[in-house]
Amino acid sequence: MDYKVNVVGRKIPTEIVGKKIFPFMGIGRAQLPDRKVAPKIRRRLPGETKLLATIEEAITKSGLKNGMTISFHHHFRGGDKLMNMVIKKIAEMGIKDITLAPSSIHPIHAPLINYIEQGVIINIQCGVTGPVGDAISQGKLKGLLTVRSHGGRARSVEDGDCHIDIAFIGAPTADEFGNLNGVDGKQACGPLGYMVPDAQYADMVIAVTNNLVPFPCNNISINQNHVDYVVQIKDPIGDPTGIVSGTTRITRDPVRLRIARNCVSVIEASGLLKDGFSFQSGAGGISLAVTQFLGERMLELEIQGSFGMGGSTSALVQLLEKGLFRRLLDVQAFDKEAIRSLKENPNHIEIGASQYANIHSSGAAVDVLDTVVLGATEIDVNFNVNVVTESDGRILHGIGGHQDTSEGAKLAIIAIPLLRGRNPVVVDNVTTLTTPGMNIDVVVTDYGIALNPESKYYRRIKRAEDLRFKTIEQLRDTAYTLVGGPPDPIPFDDRIVAIIEHRDGTVLDVIRKISD
Amino acid sequence: MDYKVNVVGRKIPTEIVGKKIFPFMGIGRAQLPDRKVAPKIRRRLPGETKLLATIEEAITKSGLKNGMTISFHHHFRGGDKLMNMVIKKIAEMGIKDITLAPSSIHPIHAPLINYIEQGVIINIQCGVTGPVGDAISQGKLKGLLTVRSHGGRARSVEDGDCHIDIAFIGAPTADEFGNLNGVDGKQACGPLGYMVPDAQYADMVIAVTNNLVPFPCNNISINQNHVDYVVQIKDPIGDPTGIVSGTTRITRDPVRLRIARNCVSVIEASGLLKDGFSFQSGAGGISLAVTQFLGERMLELEIQGSFGMGGSTSALVQLLEKGLFRRLLDVQAFDKEAIRSLKENPNHIEIGASQYANIHSSGAAVDVLDTVVLGATEIDVNFNVNVVTESDGRILHGIGGHQDTSEGAKLAIIAIPLLRGRNPVVVDNVTTLTTPGMNIDVVVTDYGIALNPESKYYRRIKRAEDLRFKTIEQLRDTAYTLVGGPPDPIPFDDRIVAIIEHRDGTVLDVIRKISD
Repeated sequence: MDYKVNVVGRKIPTEIVGKKIFPFMGIGRAQLPDRKVAPKIRRRLPGETKLLATIEEAITKSGLKNGMTISFHHHFRGGDKLMNMVIKKIAEMGIKDITLAPSSIHPIHAPLINYIEQGVIINIQCGVTGPVGDAISQGKLKGLLTVRSHGGRARSVEDGDCHIDIAFIGAPTADEFGNLNGVDGKQACGPLGYMVPDAQYADMVIAVTNNLVPFPCNNISINQNHVDYVVQIKDPIGDPTGIVSGTTRITRDPVRLRIARNCVSVIEASGLLKDGFSFQSGAGGISLAVTQFLGERMLELEIQGSFGMGGSTSALVQLLEKGLFRRLLDVQAFDKEAIRSLKENPNHIEIGASQYANIHSSGAAVDVLDTVVLGATEIDVNFNVNVVTESDGRILHGIGGHQDTSEGAKLAIIAIPLLRGRNPVVVDNVTTLTTPGMNIDVVVTDYGIALNPESKYYRRIKRAEDLRFKTIEQLRDTAYTLVGGPPDPIPFDDRIVAIIEHRDGTVLDVIRKISD
Repeated sequence: MDYKVNVVGRKIPTEIVGKKIFPFMGIGRAQLPDRKVAPKIRRRLPGETKLLATIEEAITKSGLKNGMTISFHHHFRGGDKLMNMVIKKIAEMGIKDITLAPSSIHPIHAPLINYIEQGVIINIQCGVTGPVGDAISQGKLKGLLTVRSHGGRARSVEDGDCHIDIAFIGAPTADEFGNLNGVDGKQACGPLGYMVPDAQYADMVIAVTNNLVPFPCNNISINQNHVDYVVQIKDPIGDPTGIVSGTTRITRDPVRLRIARNCVSVIEASGLLKDGFSFQSGAGGISLAVTQFLGERMLELEIQGSFGMGGSTSALVQLLEKGLFRRLLDVQAFDKEAIRSLKENPNHIEIGASQYANIHSSGAAVDVLDTVVLGATEIDVNFNVNVVTESDGRILHGIGGHQDTSEGAKLAIIAIPLLRGRNPVVVDNVTTLTTPGMNIDVVVTDYGIALNPESKYYRRIKRAEDLRFKTIEQLRDTAYTLVGGPPDPIPFDDRIVAIIEHRDGTVLDVIRKISD
């Protein structure tokens, strides 16, 4: 196997499982392909119906064959029911060697492991949270896992790196001509943003709904132009209560609350916190606290921000409703309040995945973001971040918008406690490199704040007298001291089970099978 | 020159000016191409600006060269200022041999004749209303005029038959990152629907605005993903008062009012006028009266329609506001009331040109329409319609949605007085065939109603006892008698100056140069 070392120092094979690999070269340096996928032309004549009664009928009509690539959205997150339903049916129909390319895989999709073992699914292209990732770390997937950020996924679907043969779109509401939205119906999930690239670029699009409304449905997130069939089923396509996972509640831990307060101080020290300010944070406990504290500070300073960006949460919605942000741009809802707001508030604007974060477009919202606050499972002394593998090497998380927002935002902050259980979070070298350190400005921990010397905001933030700064090496040393030394090396086999793409399609790192 | 006769009996050359021509074969019979245009990939990095100060700078940055194809929208109709402005600048910069492919050309664009004569513009692809059409009929355009319906244009832009190098989008409101809408600002024009295919498929997209608002602008009709540059100018891009032309006022002529009442009776006789009914009509005087009378009848019958479709007018808006239709689907506004309604009423829904009428998509709104009422300059005994040339052979009108709605709607009605001045409207053979007779169900005139024997609604409507039916031949005879005989043949030269495409891209007819 031939290798190249990419600009973040990782050895990347030039080819894996027959797929040509391009090493990460730095921001804006990868060769720009000329054109996206040419969308498939369909012709629907007056009087032809799109309505089908069963998923089996839809699979048959779609022409799904061995070796094809299919997709789903994860807007129901832990409450998704459609993907398991369809894969079960595909397996029953004897179809195999499928590349599964949803926008994310969650613990609820653990039944897929069975179909991975049977060879129904041979490749997966997406972020993977939970048992399916663990199974891939153990070598169960015959082919390769390609992990991409949300923006990277949109790019790959549109550019054709991940050409979708058939997209299955769970639609909380649909009309019989294929206009879809996620805000109406008993099983509302909020935006359908992650499926917008699939709707536009998949060769065939099948909507599945249990809430069929008369044409034309209002609030159209994905329109009839892009939907070939509408399957009306009785069973729910997802359970909205599953959208709220353990990671979407505000923290009560005083240590984490202090980290959150320090993030707000760092943002203020950067000079960005002024009228027109824009902000994104995740749905983790610290992030939610940052959003809340930031709102309080904006109120004190009498600042109005231009936009908050979601994954939207009730914390972010409150800032919109208080007039602290003029708009929310939203690709994904993390709780019921966010879904309600998207439905009711015209200043809460649904966007597609490419609008959100596709670097191969005329411009994505992440690229005009001032600040983002993000988490990590590990960060190293070069500020490289790992959000995908745990310190034991197992694949347990997706990338989400981490890579996209940290690259796009002027100021990218990692907010983390220094230890996760008995594992140091600041380390010499991340197990898996999922966001390059050149995109990270600040690390805020419970043991001090480390500034990236390469950050444009280094000198300005450094002036803040109320903040306790450490070098990143000092944080690492403290972490190692607390746990009694550096972590043991993880026993990996040679076999590469996954690659981590940068949002531009080049490869940041590979993940190897964990030794038995 | 080799010719083929198409299924509507017109002799079509196999090639014109080096362009291969495919004769019309019937609905849904043309060979389906495999794929659309592969959109050009762009990459915009964080911090890069899109804002430019002059149109000249935008043209330079766009890389516009001799021989390229450019586009504009006509949402300002008679009030458009941008197209003349840009073409003047292009001419000044010495660029020539341009193919001009806007969504329509209006009388206000008469200055283009100058640039046609100079060879700045050598081909035009769009419907042409007024003096530019006349000039083309006189042979002034060096190349060819390709006339398409609104749906046909969307198809051709997306399929690449008319590949747009650079789209110039006049934006009543824009933010600096390229989110655009037509409902805000002093020069609001309503939807930007006709530019949606261009935004998605042009190699380069330039927005021009005199109303720049902070990011993110709300009401996003065309989003940042598709806009490469935003030019902020001081002069108005269009004059909204020019949107209302002479054709957009309700008729007061008792003869035309009777035609309108008879259209409503025909619709009722068809059995389609029941709950869930859908309807489109144009902005002509009779059409507006039909809309009003239809509303009155729906109120009497206590019927609620599913959707009215625009080109929207105040007449249609009133039906929405009275609850007679649940929704308006709208690709173009014909008056200020329509613009106001689109901005304020969430049930007034903006759609793109492909959603409206593109046959090469997974489904267009015209294809689920119950009824459409349309005009004509001529209709012949085979129910073939001419809307493009006058009886003297001059090109004076575009096709608009005529072909699309008549093909899509279950019931297509032509509503016309039997004479236009001294010209018979019902004739033996239309001067130019722009909508095939197979798509026309009924002709309603002031001298009686002719049913197409091939119409699915023939027997049902025929039963109506209060309607005065004639055969189409009887109407022709009456018309000829009234004017003292059939019209004289028009003196044409051999040279083909224009082709009329069917919405599927095949050719219905050609137009020849008028003899001097």
